Amino acid sequence: MVVELICVGTEILLGNIVNTNAAYLAEKCAGLGLSCYFQTVVGDNGERLAMVLKTAMERSDIVILSGGLGPTEDDLTKEVAAKVCGRALVMHEPSKERLAEFFEKRGTVPTENNWKQAMMPEGAIVLDNPNGTAPGAVIETETAKVVLLPGPPNELCPMFENSVEPYLKKLTNYVICSRTVKICGVGESKAETMVKDLIDSQTNPTIATYAKTGEVHIRVTASGDNEKAAGKLIKPVVKELKARFQNAVYTTEEDVTLEKAVSDLLVANNLTVTCAESCTGGLLSGRLVNVPGVSDVYKAGFVTYSNKAKRRFLGVKKTTLQKYGAVSQQIAEEMAKGAALFTKTDVAVAVTGIAGPDGGTEEKPVGLVYIACCVKGKTTVKKYQFSGNRAKIRESSVSAALCLMRSCILEYFSKVTFGKKD
Amino acid sequence: MVVELICVGTEILLGNIVNTNAAYLAEKCAGLGLSCYFQTVVGDNGERLAMVLKTAMERSDIVILSGGLGPTEDDLTKEVAAKVCGRALVMHEPSKERLAEFFEKRGTVPTENNWKQAMMPEGAIVLDNPNGTAPGAVIETETAKVVLLPGPPNELCPMFENSVEPYLKKLTNYVICSRTVKICGVGESKAETMVKDLIDSQTNPTIATYAKTGEVHIRVTASGDNEKAAGKLIKPVVKELKARFQNAVYTTEEDVTLEKAVSDLLVANNLTVTCAESCTGGLLSGRLVNVPGVSDVYKAGFVTYSNKAKRRFLGVKKTTLQKYGAVSQQIAEEMAKGAALFTKTDVAVAVTGIAGPDGGTEEKPVGLVYIACCVKGKTTVKKYQFSGNRAKIRESSVSAALCLMRSCILEYFSKVTFGKKD
Repeated sequence: MVVELICVGTEILLGNIVNTNAAYLAEKCAGLGLSCYFQTVVGDNGERLAMVLKTAMERSDIVILSGGLGPTEDDLTKEVAAKVCGRALVMHEPSKERLAEFFEKRGTVPTENNWKQAMMPEGAIVLDNPNGTAPGAVIETETAKVVLLPGPPNELCPMFENSVEPYLKKLTNYVICSRTVKICGVGESKAETMVKDLIDSQTNPTIATYAKTGEVHIRVTASGDNEKAAGKLIKPVVKELKARFQNAVYTTEEDVTLEKAVSDLLVANNLTVTCAESCTGGLLSGRLVNVPGVSDVYKAGFVTYSNKAKRRFLGVKKTTLQKYGAVSQQIAEEMAKGAALFTKTDVAVAVTGIAGPDGGTEEKPVGLVYIACCVKGKTTVKKYQFSGNRAKIRESSVSAALCLMRSCILEYFSKVTFGKKD
Repeated sequence: MVVELICVGTEILLGNIVNTNAAYLAEKCAGLGLSCYFQTVVGDNGERLAMVLKTAMERSDIVILSGGLGPTEDDLTKEVAAKVCGRALVMHEPSKERLAEFFEKRGTVPTENNWKQAMMPEGAIVLDNPNGTAPGAVIETETAKVVLLPGPPNELCPMFENSVEPYLKKLTNYVICSRTVKICGVGESKAETMVKDLIDSQTNPTIATYAKTGEVHIRVTASGDNEKAAGKLIKPVVKELKARFQNAVYTTEEDVTLEKAVSDLLVANNLTVTCAESCTGGLLSGRLVNVPGVSDVYKAGFVTYSNKAKRRFLGVKKTTLQKYGAVSQQIAEEMAKGAALFTKTDVAVAVTGIAGPDGGTEEKPVGLVYIACCVKGKTTVKKYQFSGNRAKIRESSVSAALCLMRSCILEYFSKVTFGKKD
């Protein structure tokens, strides 16, 4: 089956935002075994959107549109799609009720234009949006299925996963299964080189690598008559990948993130944890706290941005600061040890670095980051040199810290691999 | 003049990479005053690429293609473009020499397929590529100018800026300028309603609203003979927007984020700041530390996820916890006051809430968040009810906290508006 993506929004045409929705949807569709030949971006213009949608419906079985479902004048995707598909827009009472509830909960009075979000193309499958006000929809016509999704990624992604993915799975007469081997601590090029022979020699399953910040995801996708048949094709390849990447594989579960893997490891070993952050300024704690169950092991964390705060809250020595500077192996180590001591936790991780744009020197350039991890008194410090802007360096540091925590805990318990465990 | 973008590459269709080239080119073209109505992504497939290119050449004056100029079998953009434009490919001797030099310098012997990179459409303007092996080209036909650029961003961007931009500037006789009025603390629908009359009545400049988490951006875009003329059209509209939204406007500068506006306000008033976070778990500090200059005022912050941590580090009373629970107005207030006292800072902001998915009750549902802001001893607490998943609730809380900080500081100093200041 052939799918086509249409992203609607003048802000994409103006280059105000990067079209991450297209990349997300493309990856998801590829994972479902759908072929995608075209992606189009069109502005908030009815005539041009209609033209693009008609063309897409002629050449593809499924057309996924994102954006333009909101309450404003500009939002006209639903109106155009309904017209192109020959459907009237009618009030969808359950959506209207949900909208009313939404505003009541927030104690605000909806403006008149808000109600247009509850108007749905006649006969459409309405997709619930628990993360926003605009529901999605699927319009089934004789030539194509037209899927309408909201533009904000935090609404689009859950809606795709909860409603669209199960719907699309039912449409195909073969089953596509995929499994992702998630790796941390190995660079993209190295990971690619390590699996190139597999990529080149395989057609079913296919193998594709996806670079994420501080991580590489290797997706193994197979098609078969049923889930069991596809799964059977995937299994030996996943086994081979685990054998090649060993300890670097942190999960093969779709919904396990790196922070979840680390949190699980802490909870399973009954280890409490704290973070002491300088350049990351709270992002590491913030990412750990993404995991709902982390409260069992994570109680408190510190952002010690100034030297004074490092001394006062973590007991970092003035002489060490003077001798080596705040961005040094010694300070990272003292921060981690101090945090562990101060909070009486089993694991403490500390990050200190130069995120830029200023503050770099020839000796200590922007992107230099030290991360220390202390597990029950045993401290490991690693030096990193990241590239990119301030945000990118901080994001890379957080991923590296999670990766280091994981390997230090594994090492402490001398667990060989996740891979060999299951 | 109308420009259209075509990005060529199966890796984009598979979602392996995010299409940052499109965002880059779109922003550049908008800055040159070119209208862009369509962006298309197509794979490394000759037939489909030819189809897309023909359509683009019919409806646009300039077509910019990126990707597919390299030496491999997959790279066929130049071949297809030459064919669609009715040009033969001929060896371009200066490019051949440059290629030979390139390989000599690196001490490698080029494979046969490398030479195809020096084959150029007859009569094309060849664009030098100092950062790679594949030169770019402009093919001028009667209907459209077709610009061919290499795919790697580190080759595409310099080639665009050095060769394409000067070429395009000569083609246009007007410029486009835009300015964004950024607002916090007002919902998207309400903001839209407040400017609907302006949106409906204006064609130059145009006005468009963009919803962000906890913010609304209103973009005013004008075209004119020159920058001054376009700027003159924008000015009164921006003034009117400032008058309507008053204090809610936190900036009209393109590169000022909400956290930067708050940081600037703190620095300008010489106010030190700290954060005490429960459900946001460090994200608020993390976002403040996004701002490079924030170290002047932000020294330390706390993640007090457990009740024990709230008591130990912030001095929250056991009796208050028992009487009102951790998610309450009283605890938010004690957290902020305690943090201010403990760190001796002028401003302290505290966040406590239920981010879910578990932990909600009928009385205190998931999404309930209390934020307290203490400015020099005067504490304000606000109750919020956010919707969405855990990540969305936490992100909304961070934006709301920044917005509350800003309004509390402004109130403290009884500054009327940012808008009226400049």
